[in-house]
Amino acid sequence: MIFKRIAIIGVGLIGGSLGLAVKKRNLARVVVGIGRRPSSVRKALRRGAIDIGTKDLAKGVAGADLVIIATPVCSIPKIARAIAGSLKEGAVLTDAGSTKGEVVRSVEGCISPKTFFVGSHPLAGSEKRGVLFADEDLFRGSVVIMTKTKKTKGSAVKTLDRFWRSLGVARVVIKSPEEHDRIVAEISHLPHLVATALINSADKKSIEFAAAGFKDTTRIAASDPEVWRDICITNKKEILRTLDRYERHLLRLKAIIKKGRAEELYKEFAKSKSIREKLR
Amino acid sequence: MIFKRIAIIGVGLIGGSLGLAVKKRNLARVVVGIGRRPSSVRKALRRGAIDIGTKDLAKGVAGADLVIIATPVCSIPKIARAIAGSLKEGAVLTDAGSTKGEVVRSVEGCISPKTFFVGSHPLAGSEKRGVLFADEDLFRGSVVIMTKTKKTKGSAVKTLDRFWRSLGVARVVIKSPEEHDRIVAEISHLPHLVATALINSADKKSIEFAAAGFKDTTRIAASDPEVWRDICITNKKEILRTLDRYERHLLRLKAIIKKGRAEELYKEFAKSKSIREKLR
Repeated sequence: MIFKRIAIIGVGLIGGSLGLAVKKRNLARVVVGIGRRPSSVRKALRRGAIDIGTKDLAKGVAGADLVIIATPVCSIPKIARAIAGSLKEGAVLTDAGSTKGEVVRSVEGCISPKTFFVGSHPLAGSEKRGVLFADEDLFRGSVVIMTKTKKTKGSAVKTLDRFWRSLGVARVVIKSPEEHDRIVAEISHLPHLVATALINSADKKSIEFAAAGFKDTTRIAASDPEVWRDICITNKKEILRTLDRYERHLLRLKAIIKKGRAEELYKEFAKSKSIREKLR
Repeated sequence: MIFKRIAIIGVGLIGGSLGLAVKKRNLARVVVGIGRRPSSVRKALRRGAIDIGTKDLAKGVAGADLVIIATPVCSIPKIARAIAGSLKEGAVLTDAGSTKGEVVRSVEGCISPKTFFVGSHPLAGSEKRGVLFADEDLFRGSVVIMTKTKKTKGSAVKTLDRFWRSLGVARVVIKSPEEHDRIVAEISHLPHLVATALINSADKKSIEFAAAGFKDTTRIAASDPEVWRDICITNKKEILRTLDRYERHLLRLKAIIKKGRAEELYKEFAKSKSIREKLR
């Protein structure tokens, strides 16, 4: 599969990795990168992640068969509105945002019926930020969730399914935007909040003794604040629901510690061990 | 520094790694390993972590200059009582337990004034269990907290300081048992409970989508349940205190998500990013 022209909006860690992955695998004749900051665009060009760089959204997406928005979630609807009139007829539009309900609703509401949007979320990333940390194999072996609504065009889903697989993605799964948001609230947004609270509540004097356990548990708390602010804003309902459930579990643990219930403690730890060990 | 005879009680991950580290660096003429289960003792012998293996505590510690108890915390006092009469005059006794208040109090209360106990806690480990995962470099670059009380003998502290450093430990710090327990509650026990609650509260259908973030955050939840049961039992007060503080932070995060306060969210994430990035 070869696209004539792929436009990537946002040339940070994700956008840059997309560019590198596409170029490594020769999936496009031309990769256009569109960035807010001229310095990011320059870095992406120097890194070889894109062939052409610009700040101009309309110019950047003109003539592209595939356009991917790889920016923090809250800017995706604004960008979609800004480029809607410049997309080529038949263009496939997708994103790489971490929440889907609000994004998919807004984007579907603003693009022309002659262009085709499918939401994508590659479950891959890093706490690092910027094109300097971009990696041509970031998506290899990962899972991509794509969204399907009544407005989703089957042929666009097929195109994107092939696109993601061509980047080395191991599994492409189709969910509704709502299902997607529920799943990621549990496996991504909750762990992030938990890590953030761990770091922010820790005594600075104790942190100097942090060993591998603390470091692993809190690694993701070093991620881009803008990305995570947007995630919390656009997935509020599911995040709050999943936080409530987590809190109930933590309170239960606290209660059995308070009561010194050795057997129940053992069972809780044995349960988490058996579940965690199955995750490789 | 060479000991004539080092006895290690408990030949699992920690005891086995101690044996391998001592033997690699030639710190003892003989390493005796004492285990509950004959099969563990056999494995430790086969792994080359010990020279002599036995199930018999009294026999095992007889004649040893240095005795290290490397078992789950709750068995340390029982073992100390069982070996107190068999320790050689002048022997140095230590442990590798993750909590110190109760342990140090009980052990100091039962050994003879002619033998010298200093509590040790090497802040190194793994979620793995058993001598098969033992590693001669497990302690290299790590921190060891040793405890000091009114009863602690300075010369024994010096001997153990040199011992740990000889294993490649980067830093040996002396704290009171109470300070130790407060620090590890924050940087080790709390993250463990948080990871356990994350795993145990997660929907099984969502877990299949877990990516690197979830996996790192919950890695420690696969640890030995017996070890963690004992830690919660013996460090209840500090764990509950630190859990309370963490909960307050999490509730604050939840409140600003509920209210959709973008700027405050950004600040929370920026704060955790800046603290976490300093931890290398």
